[in-house]
Amino acid sequence: MNPAVKSAAEYAAKRGMKPYVVEWGLRGLIEGWIHEVTGERLSGILHRGGTVLGSSRSKRFFDIKFREQAFQNLKERGISKLIVVGGDGSFNALNQFYADFGVPFAGIPATIDNDIAGTDYCLGVDTALNVIRQSVDSIRDTASSFSRAFVIETMGRHCGYLAMTSALATGAEVCLVPEIPYDLDSIAERMREEKAHGRNYLLGIVAEGVGMGESLTRWMGDALGMDARLTVLGHVQRGGSPTVYDRIMAFKFAVAAVDALQAGDTNRVITFKDGTFGSSSINEIADSKHAVDPNLIRLCENLSR
Amino acid sequence: MNPAVKSAAEYAAKRGMKPYVVEWGLRGLIEGWIHEVTGERLSGILHRGGTVLGSSRSKRFFDIKFREQAFQNLKERGISKLIVVGGDGSFNALNQFYADFGVPFAGIPATIDNDIAGTDYCLGVDTALNVIRQSVDSIRDTASSFSRAFVIETMGRHCGYLAMTSALATGAEVCLVPEIPYDLDSIAERMREEKAHGRNYLLGIVAEGVGMGESLTRWMGDALGMDARLTVLGHVQRGGSPTVYDRIMAFKFAVAAVDALQAGDTNRVITFKDGTFGSSSINEIADSKHAVDPNLIRLCENLSR
Amino acid sequence: MNPAVKSAAEYAAKRGMKPYVVEWGLRGLIEGWIHEVTGERLSGILHRGGTVLGSSRSKRFFDIKFREQAFQNLKERGISKLIVVGGDGSFNALNQFYADFGVPFAGIPATIDNDIAGTDYCLGVDTALNVIRQSVDSIRDTASSFSRAFVIETMGRHCGYLAMTSALATGAEVCLVPEIPYDLDSIAERMREEKAHGRNYLLGIVAEGVGMGESLTRWMGDALGMDARLTVLGHVQRGGSPTVYDRIMAFKFAVAAVDALQAGDTNRVITFKDGTFGSSSINEIADSKHAVDPNLIRLCENLSR
Amino acid sequence: MNPAVKSAAEYAAKRGMKPYVVEWGLRGLIEGWIHEVTGERLSGILHRGGTVLGSSRSKRFFDIKFREQAFQNLKERGISKLIVVGGDGSFNALNQFYADFGVPFAGIPATIDNDIAGTDYCLGVDTALNVIRQSVDSIRDTASSFSRAFVIETMGRHCGYLAMTSALATGAEVCLVPEIPYDLDSIAERMREEKAHGRNYLLGIVAEGVGMGESLTRWMGDALGMDARLTVLGHVQRGGSPTVYDRIMAFKFAVAAVDALQAGDTNRVITFKDGTFGSSSINEIADSKHAVDPNLIRLCENLSR
Repeated sequence: MNPAVKSAAEYAAKRGMKPYVVEWGLRGLIEGWIHEVTGERLSGILHRGGTVLGSSRSKRFFDIKFREQAFQNLKERGISKLIVVGGDGSFNALNQFYADFGVPFAGIPATIDNDIAGTDYCLGVDTALNVIRQSVDSIRDTASSFSRAFVIETMGRHCGYLAMTSALATGAEVCLVPEIPYDLDSIAERMREEKAHGRNYLLGIVAEGVGMGESLTRWMGDALGMDARLTVLGHVQRGGSPTVYDRIMAFKFAVAAVDALQAGDTNRVITFKDGTFGSSSINEIADSKHAVDPNLIRLCENLSR
Repeated sequence: MNPAVKSAAEYAAKRGMKPYVVEWGLRGLIEGWIHEVTGERLSGILHRGGTVLGSSRSKRFFDIKFREQAFQNLKERGISKLIVVGGDGSFNALNQFYADFGVPFAGIPATIDNDIAGTDYCLGVDTALNVIRQSVDSIRDTASSFSRAFVIETMGRHCGYLAMTSALATGAEVCLVPEIPYDLDSIAERMREEKAHGRNYLLGIVAEGVGMGESLTRWMGDALGMDARLTVLGHVQRGGSPTVYDRIMAFKFAVAAVDALQAGDTNRVITFKDGTFGSSSINEIADSKHAVDPNLIRLCENLSR
Repeated sequence: MNPAVKSAAEYAAKRGMKPYVVEWGLRGLIEGWIHEVTGERLSGILHRGGTVLGSSRSKRFFDIKFREQAFQNLKERGISKLIVVGGDGSFNALNQFYADFGVPFAGIPATIDNDIAGTDYCLGVDTALNVIRQSVDSIRDTASSFSRAFVIETMGRHCGYLAMTSALATGAEVCLVPEIPYDLDSIAERMREEKAHGRNYLLGIVAEGVGMGESLTRWMGDALGMDARLTVLGHVQRGGSPTVYDRIMAFKFAVAAVDALQAGDTNRVITFKDGTFGSSSINEIADSKHAVDPNLIRLCENLSR
Repeated sequence: MNPAVKSAAEYAAKRGMKPYVVEWGLRGLIEGWIHEVTGERLSGILHRGGTVLGSSRSKRFFDIKFREQAFQNLKERGISKLIVVGGDGSFNALNQFYADFGVPFAGIPATIDNDIAGTDYCLGVDTALNVIRQSVDSIRDTASSFSRAFVIETMGRHCGYLAMTSALATGAEVCLVPEIPYDLDSIAERMREEKAHGRNYLLGIVAEGVGMGESLTRWMGDALGMDARLTVLGHVQRGGSPTVYDRIMAFKFAVAAVDALQAGDTNRVITFKDGTFGSSSINEIADSKHAVDPNLIRLCENLSR
């Protein structure tokens, strides 16, 4: 998120706007934790994980009274447009804020799960994938040294993007995701055959949303007779210094967001689709369901059976 | 390169072909260092830097006598198509080989400089960029702690892609590349102004091909009165475990190469352009010059003056 | 483990011995998976995690019949001394083997938990600590960005060394280990006070053996009213390229082991105590209990209450 | 350095002292950039490379007038003791300051070169070694893939500690340091022999102070007929997040420094010798010459000939 904030502020200034940052998200809007951007505040943040501005959920923002207070905070400072980096929750909150007070905004999609409709990419995904990769590569060393089976659970409640991409990138033998029905019997047969040909270890990657982490691990022990272990990667996936891809994408998303606001657009989420930046209205995004690239699903089908 | 080799072999096998690997490149073709692919040979290589097959330049391949020998090696094993991972040199060598003996081939572009005409991406570039990023982020720590100026020289003889992308991703203040004329006086003025506003350190990134590493460093000391140092990143940029992006791209390039050969194409280099995979003939590539994305150049112009 | 194997083989050769490697541990002894060391076999392994030789537990080794078979395998090859890298289980197995057949051995302690009596250091610990550090640093980014509490569970069944050292190295606020009685009420009070002074996030590190991961997380949510999450680092801790410290220690342990065998010692485990290498007999180790440095415990006491 | 600063401040507070930090070193003493320590100032710095306080050389400090000014700054704030993290230059400056105004100080040795007399360890060395290790491991991938020779130059003007330790830890074939006379003819013979036995690549590590980087590279090309390249690691070695070993050592050095000051010691540098913390007077350090562990030298002698 830091590269997006820095890029948006710098590009907005270059386009003649006067950028501010809001600390702690919606809560900061209400509390008035809003600061004009100075060089020092955004210096040295490009390579830091997390967000130096802080992020928070705010139930109070559902209350018109506090949204009114947030609007006053903006008005006092002469702030007329907003950029928000986040997911559906943040976008909907600002959509309501626009309905109330007419403050235009542009959304930059940033969720680790890569599950926002209308865009192929959400900020943070490449960084998360490379954290997962390093963990899985490292677990592979252990698995092959000790002839073990490992199940690794990645984030992804409704969307298997992280799990599928990691499975391809690390050469996992099994991958279970919400998008693909799995067949354990068929997996067992495939594994027995590979074991007969010399395979001595096994890596399975499971998206959190499938809820199969523990039972797949147990099943590998029982059905395949292997010493099997589960690793839940958890919040390690969320951190780490942003990769180059994420920083460059953050820059491009930020430029598109500033340009959209200057062009008079509002209530739009910046999207990256088939290699091109564009935008979708909040309503389009709300009405449609995020769908993972069917090619990716096709490639992973043979890891689910 | 390892992910490309593994993906190509596995996908070719799935498509009903019988894959072989050639060790040590053209030299291995001549010497007959050619092995049928077994699971074990390509197991556990996805995460390794460099290439487990080895790479070499071979002057003998310019001699028809040795190309004839290479052809016999293929014929004996019933090998009828080739995939080569590399740059212009490798592609031209196989083009000649095709002219001599009619063995079709497909090329997968892989150069750190990202300088092959017709494709936006060459394998290895994302990995190199992230190695550079970590070095520059780390040097930034030193620069800001000690109030110093640092010049960092990246690879890139004729192409400033690595330097420009790294400069954007790490927030460098100065960037010199072959594609953009630079103006040191104007840079000096910009830096003096930033120093007056509190800037206490300075990062400059220079592509090797500009040949300005040492003189820019000296100039920063002289014109700006800063304690300035040069770091030439050198071959550290070539190594490291492939990033997820590189592994997935390797997979896609490999699939496209196998598909192209099965479709009867020959003498073509697989390309990735505007988000889509395609291919160019060797002649098209030889005739055209690689051009960096003009948007990237535009973004870096203000770092060159 | 790889640096230990390579160092031992090279140093033994230099001392005029003829080194062999046994693949897959005790199982390899029984099966005769024993190979004379060639340069190629141990080349390029220093930087690889896990062990290229493979490791296994073997129940058959408890049976004198299979130990007899193992002894024949050694005899045939003229192998008269053994070095084993591992923990108590491996040492005891070879101790029995010595009682049976009089084959002297030296043990090199290598357990992630750092829990072998008589030595301050077991190979692999520094590497594991740095893997933990990177995960905790990364989780701290998330914790401070989102105002959350995180509990991180490290390995360590009976020994809190990893958890205590990580807690000190990453500045965790809470640390629970088997060696120190904890007081949740007192921790809660300390945290409430810090929150009153501006603390907005919280990191707790718990050794696996305390069994408090889930309940501490729940308690942080309940008692402190924070959004709290648990991360179980699991087998990620076991992998990764060995650190410099581990490689140098592996070298020194290996040299000490070869020297001990050449000096006619047997049934001894090489130890590193108060900065000096020495050795203990298996019986001494079996009779004593591993004790963590009392200074380390004292430093962590105030993180447990 | 950050872990040392944080540890010293926290431990001093625990011992009933009131800690301050001085920004930008000696210059900050003169300018009065001195701040009472608050939790926020030193929060989240343990994992950051460089120093958040800033460091600087100050010629003015040689002038009694400015030292007088520095003394007034301390007096005004009631500061009566100093801890300095650095090398001989900083220690001597504070020694003079003590001679002038009687302000006691304790020095914590922190130089990448590990070249301060009287101590086996200087802060930052383990972090630097692991940065070097990752670079060399990565270059090894390239070297073995392309059959090349690489010379890697590490820091170390008068002291070969970094180069020797890295050479052992990465398995380099050649190592040149100021402490050991080298014999290129004998190296050439050794390499020719290894090439005859299948060696296809070569890594040499050279300490900066030997001044042989470029000529060794050329010589490898000429005498051994290999494609040889030089990489000067440069300031990449200075950065990076501190390793666990460095953080724990920083903590222990800081505790020893605070304890020494409380015990009434002055003008002493904290040392770590043969596994034990102690201290040396500035004069002892000035009079003696730093000597690298003779065992380390003995181990590297066969890499120099």
